[in-house]
Amino acid sequence: MDTLITAASRVRRSGKRRISFPITNRAYYGRSQLLIRKLHAHPDVDLELMLGGSILLDKYSHHIAAEIEAEGFSISAPMFNVIEGGNHVAMAKTACLTALEFTNGLHATDPDIVVISGDRFEQLAIAMAAAYLNKTIAHIEGGDVTGSIDESVRHAITKLAHVHFVTNEDAHRRVLAMGEDPRYVFNVGSLHVERASKVHTMLTDSMVNPNGVGFEIAVTRPFLMVIQHPVTTESENKAHLESTLRAIGALEMPTIWFWPNPDAGTAEMSETIRHFREHHERATANTRFITNVSADEFVAMLKATVCLVGNSSAGIKEASYLGTPVVNIGGRQQGRLTAGNVLDVGYDGAQIRGAVERQLRHGRYPPSSLYFRSDASQQIADRLVDVELYTQKRFFDGASTASLGTPPR
Amino acid sequence: MDTLITAASRVRRSGKRRISFPITNRAYYGRSQLLIRKLHAHPDVDLELMLGGSILLDKYSHHIAAEIEAEGFSISAPMFNVIEGGNHVAMAKTACLTALEFTNGLHATDPDIVVISGDRFEQLAIAMAAAYLNKTIAHIEGGDVTGSIDESVRHAITKLAHVHFVTNEDAHRRVLAMGEDPRYVFNVGSLHVERASKVHTMLTDSMVNPNGVGFEIAVTRPFLMVIQHPVTTESENKAHLESTLRAIGALEMPTIWFWPNPDAGTAEMSETIRHFREHHERATANTRFITNVSADEFVAMLKATVCLVGNSSAGIKEASYLGTPVVNIGGRQQGRLTAGNVLDVGYDGAQIRGAVERQLRHGRYPPSSLYFRSDASQQIADRLVDVELYTQKRFFDGASTASLGTPPR
Amino acid sequence: MDTLITAASRVRRSGKRRISFPITNRAYYGRSQLLIRKLHAHPDVDLELMLGGSILLDKYSHHIAAEIEAEGFSISAPMFNVIEGGNHVAMAKTACLTALEFTNGLHATDPDIVVISGDRFEQLAIAMAAAYLNKTIAHIEGGDVTGSIDESVRHAITKLAHVHFVTNEDAHRRVLAMGEDPRYVFNVGSLHVERASKVHTMLTDSMVNPNGVGFEIAVTRPFLMVIQHPVTTESENKAHLESTLRAIGALEMPTIWFWPNPDAGTAEMSETIRHFREHHERATANTRFITNVSADEFVAMLKATVCLVGNSSAGIKEASYLGTPVVNIGGRQQGRLTAGNVLDVGYDGAQIRGAVERQLRHGRYPPSSLYFRSDASQQIADRLVDVELYTQKRFFDGASTASLGTPPR
Amino acid sequence: MDTLITAASRVRRSGKRRISFPITNRAYYGRSQLLIRKLHAHPDVDLELMLGGSILLDKYSHHIAAEIEAEGFSISAPMFNVIEGGNHVAMAKTACLTALEFTNGLHATDPDIVVISGDRFEQLAIAMAAAYLNKTIAHIEGGDVTGSIDESVRHAITKLAHVHFVTNEDAHRRVLAMGEDPRYVFNVGSLHVERASKVHTMLTDSMVNPNGVGFEIAVTRPFLMVIQHPVTTESENKAHLESTLRAIGALEMPTIWFWPNPDAGTAEMSETIRHFREHHERATANTRFITNVSADEFVAMLKATVCLVGNSSAGIKEASYLGTPVVNIGGRQQGRLTAGNVLDVGYDGAQIRGAVERQLRHGRYPPSSLYFRSDASQQIADRLVDVELYTQKRFFDGASTASLGTPPR
Repeated sequence: MDTLITAASRVRRSGKRRISFPITNRAYYGRSQLLIRKLHAHPDVDLELMLGGSILLDKYSHHIAAEIEAEGFSISAPMFNVIEGGNHVAMAKTACLTALEFTNGLHATDPDIVVISGDRFEQLAIAMAAAYLNKTIAHIEGGDVTGSIDESVRHAITKLAHVHFVTNEDAHRRVLAMGEDPRYVFNVGSLHVERASKVHTMLTDSMVNPNGVGFEIAVTRPFLMVIQHPVTTESENKAHLESTLRAIGALEMPTIWFWPNPDAGTAEMSETIRHFREHHERATANTRFITNVSADEFVAMLKATVCLVGNSSAGIKEASYLGTPVVNIGGRQQGRLTAGNVLDVGYDGAQIRGAVERQLRHGRYPPSSLYFRSDASQQIADRLVDVELYTQKRFFDGASTASLGTPPR
Repeated sequence: MDTLITAASRVRRSGKRRISFPITNRAYYGRSQLLIRKLHAHPDVDLELMLGGSILLDKYSHHIAAEIEAEGFSISAPMFNVIEGGNHVAMAKTACLTALEFTNGLHATDPDIVVISGDRFEQLAIAMAAAYLNKTIAHIEGGDVTGSIDESVRHAITKLAHVHFVTNEDAHRRVLAMGEDPRYVFNVGSLHVERASKVHTMLTDSMVNPNGVGFEIAVTRPFLMVIQHPVTTESENKAHLESTLRAIGALEMPTIWFWPNPDAGTAEMSETIRHFREHHERATANTRFITNVSADEFVAMLKATVCLVGNSSAGIKEASYLGTPVVNIGGRQQGRLTAGNVLDVGYDGAQIRGAVERQLRHGRYPPSSLYFRSDASQQIADRLVDVELYTQKRFFDGASTASLGTPPR
Repeated sequence: MDTLITAASRVRRSGKRRISFPITNRAYYGRSQLLIRKLHAHPDVDLELMLGGSILLDKYSHHIAAEIEAEGFSISAPMFNVIEGGNHVAMAKTACLTALEFTNGLHATDPDIVVISGDRFEQLAIAMAAAYLNKTIAHIEGGDVTGSIDESVRHAITKLAHVHFVTNEDAHRRVLAMGEDPRYVFNVGSLHVERASKVHTMLTDSMVNPNGVGFEIAVTRPFLMVIQHPVTTESENKAHLESTLRAIGALEMPTIWFWPNPDAGTAEMSETIRHFREHHERATANTRFITNVSADEFVAMLKATVCLVGNSSAGIKEASYLGTPVVNIGGRQQGRLTAGNVLDVGYDGAQIRGAVERQLRHGRYPPSSLYFRSDASQQIADRLVDVELYTQKRFFDGASTASLGTPPR
Repeated sequence: MDTLITAASRVRRSGKRRISFPITNRAYYGRSQLLIRKLHAHPDVDLELMLGGSILLDKYSHHIAAEIEAEGFSISAPMFNVIEGGNHVAMAKTACLTALEFTNGLHATDPDIVVISGDRFEQLAIAMAAAYLNKTIAHIEGGDVTGSIDESVRHAITKLAHVHFVTNEDAHRRVLAMGEDPRYVFNVGSLHVERASKVHTMLTDSMVNPNGVGFEIAVTRPFLMVIQHPVTTESENKAHLESTLRAIGALEMPTIWFWPNPDAGTAEMSETIRHFREHHERATANTRFITNVSADEFVAMLKATVCLVGNSSAGIKEASYLGTPVVNIGGRQQGRLTAGNVLDVGYDGAQIRGAVERQLRHGRYPPSSLYFRSDASQQIADRLVDVELYTQKRFFDGASTASLGTPPR
């Protein structure tokens, strides 16, 4: 059997370091693009993008697939593993099915390193599969503290991963506290922010209006952006969303509203928006609901908007560097290191509206370097190529290390 | 849909705290029996045992299923999710399929708490599913340091779990270092050891000889026990096992050898033993290979054997209290807190043989309380009933807690 | 293990005949309701409804779940096994996942008979699982000839099933030709048609207008109904649908248009409708797009509409008895026995429009009894209770039977 | 998405006809080898072998995988989808999981034709997946009548398949009766038998004795062969097997006994053999239990044995041409066209023993051509290359065809 697996059904090895990069979500591609390009171009790397999860479902990521393909990357696609339902059960089963299919792919590809990015639920499932397959796992963006199920998922991935690329000092400290070996934890700044710093695309009406439904946006006039994801560990997502819908409606400003991601709670969120739109025409009269933009266009919007409202991490990370005023709602980002551009509010409509008005009066902020390094992607690529591979982890105990013998190599 | 789920296809709630206890391995049942009985008998608890994984496969756990049933517990059985192959791919896919099926069961049962025990690969998958379903997770035996993939799995479960029952002070310290809230971390000692302390079964020949194949054991005469599991993160498992087979053969002593668990590497281990037996009749002439004994019989053997050889955690935990001499081979238990009864050796046959001879000369040890509390199961049961439930975790940062607002409740 | 399975994790037997009825689609419930009620009420039957597939996804069957529950049936729910994508791959994987989960359910329930209804893709997968579990399978609506993948699926189910309830003489003849034992093939007429014959609900505006989006229908004025499903074996579904959209638009009549089922091609169909609606406001100005009505309301609509357009089997079966004029488009129903109420057309818009106009001039038709027996549900219920159970099938060879020994009993 | 799928993640098309050949069992490879070689060598064919199911599990097919690889075929391997348990539930779930994984592979490969061979349970599941993916399906060995679940599975595959290669006249007649189009049904004889006719390997002791356990066979002296599979639709498999074990034991002749296939009932069969061997040393003193031989070695054994005992189809097909005396036990092959070399018996030990003795007295039979064509593989290869492809099936109704319009092309 081993003969067969080695020589026929598995990809042949070239002597280069082989890196598998599972991408399961449109946002992951955007943020990772600089890194992916550097790895793809690197003479000592065989890069395999593994596309799965929602990235291959038309309605969420039409452009992305074409974009990825156009770059000429080596792609495998464990396809159609998203289970319908948009609730917790569907999310859990999607994670299991995704991991089942990535197991097949990871076994066939036999990478030296699997890169796990962020904290989405299916990424933990893939990390688990990779760990059982005895692969070295590199994790990007560990150590942050937030709300939602992401908080647990992120730290669990850290405890399965062998190499860690964190984005800020707080995260660095926490990853070490969790017993990771300091020789394998690197603070390289945020890929999102590096990328945002390199976008020079100018926003035009035609990036916004052919996309989605509702009000026609004129990008030269002040507009709000809203991104409000469901919080998987909360049960009042519908009420919270309606509260924001009303608050924004009352502001009577042109607004670009992003349709929610396909996570647990999504079906309810989409339904809430749809219902609200049908029954509160006036409150949504100035809003365009859009489902998808390219990563560059997204940054261009962040640079142009007068205020980003909601609970997206973009408000904490990209916006800190871009100086975009942010009204951050609820607990989803709670615990993140934030720059001065963020006003935290609860789910109360009056509070949301008040905070937006305060940000409108304030205007844009000076750039912060909390999450910014100009060479994040280059640093990660270099480490992925050079880092010593190991698979047997051991809790790094500081003082008591001596008694544990030689640390893993 | 919600109506349907609530009222018909899901178990009706009784007002008691509902606890789901997934058991996926025969060893898990033995060690957890005292706890399970206490929960089953508790007036404020609805206990549901969820049997899956290898526990329902005849060849590994014939007695266990009947035993569990005889106790009258409420049982659900997400059955037949072990994928054949006995290698890493099969292990990874088994975990995914197990989690997929437990998701269905956990959703239908809708427990308040899911109890995850230990560090087997499918337990992480189930913990992941439970986390996505927004359940409060209690973890037993977190914080230990060992070798094998168990090391990663154990800590990843810790980062998904909300309530922690650790078995010793080192583990306690590590779970706190990983950012768990001190109010939810309890050092209660080991369930295995508590249970071992309560076994008064006397070992008889008839517990050993109708089981398995090979040499007939006379339990009144000195005999060795060997348990050597594959180490999933090592590739030399076959050579290591043969080395032990030769070393034990050379000792020419009656030996009870436990067949390996169905993990990655098992197929190879079983094949190695089978092949060795066929081709080295003399070296295995004094050995009985057995596949299964009850938990009580196992403890009775530990009390009777002159030396336990291999890499089982029973050598570290139960044996420390029972005073059984142990020769611990290789890295699988590396990093565990050990009492004086353990001699650590590498995979070299001469070294193994020498260590066994040294233990034979030494004889049994005085009991250690490293892992022993007389009321471990009672303490866990009490906490499971009383602990405040919460689902949103947050890294407990010590000094910086103040800025994170109210800790989870 | 067997002890365990028998006594604990499996449903206890009552001595009654236990019948499992998998329902995976809202339409299946409507058509089967009379039968389900009779089985539920029967003193010698334990009936278990197994709900899965799309029936538990809010967007398609909100009412149904509540309705089923209100009837007090015993329900199990192998939930969330529909894989997103709405294409062939997603359909195939949905079937596999559905069958995987129904296997668990069928094993736990251990029915004497599994009732498979119709020809949807997941029903074959469930029939396959039931066959492997050695259950007696009863099939409703075998032997018909149509287009689409349903044609293959239907006959493959016949070859797995042990007892056959066909709806018309042609089907009877074909099921016998395929080698089924004549003692187990019963022509009982159509459940749909029996049901339609018993509906006395009067259609009101309030059944239509709170549901879906678009034009407000006044049911007292003439309106069209359109139901056009994707044809899985054709690739031009989008063009065909647009052709119908244009033809109906040109008629400028109030129209109730049913959103497509979640099958392969659905995503494309939904997108086509959505896109058409946004870009051809005039052509859809008189159309209400609705996603769901109760079975009774559906029949009430069939009785009220001036013409049913599309490729639904309701046009062939229910409409034949109700006398509803039908314009049947394309190959999906090709080969079915049809009454005089049906005009067959291709995908050409002018042809569709012409046929609708012809039907408008003709008006309603006299009832046909092609598919009608007044006691279909009672006959099926009686047979399910009385039929001798067997599992080993054998091709019934007519003349050569003698040489095959005793036929199955 | 379509762009992506076409250009990147799917295999590029070469203009040749692409044929996928799923092989899920070691026996399938042996019987299909001549056909596979002809397709592989054909200038107008791109052949892809898809290995899955038990063929990649070491214990059953060690040689096969290496053999296949050595031939240089293009191979993909949807691996590790056999679920442990060896019972009906495991069989059903294995089929579902296998189909799930072959769906991914078939989608990526995008073949023009999928070749489904025989009647094993997982082949129906793969046929189902291929049908849903809208592939043209060619079926080899349809139309036969036998016992066990194979009977239903075989005919259900026929009703999903578009092109049929049957092995004998009876089968031809039945496939037509089931409504298949005569233009696509070809009686080409049996691949097994063609292959058997071309084997000139001489049996040696060294083909038998390094394999398995037990008595050393001297192939120059008379020996029996036994192959007794579980019958999935019967519940007395264990008793039936013991009956044969005793009957063979009483004959006190050298015997080569084949370990059962991994089907439902296998675990029980293996356990029965193991137990019987331990407890009836005398009765198995002359028996060698072997798990695997190459296809050529198997034919060499059939030519050398004095009698084949059991319920293998090899007794009906290959043995008819080779003239091997056969004692066919029970209902598994019931209904097959048999030549004069077969004595049918029930499960009674005395009857089995008597029939073997009668065959020993009779000696070998003259070759029969019931299942033999000298060019079966060439004929199938030619048809697979030339046959007009179609996907929409329609019941071929003989007389009533006219009314159905043009048959599929």
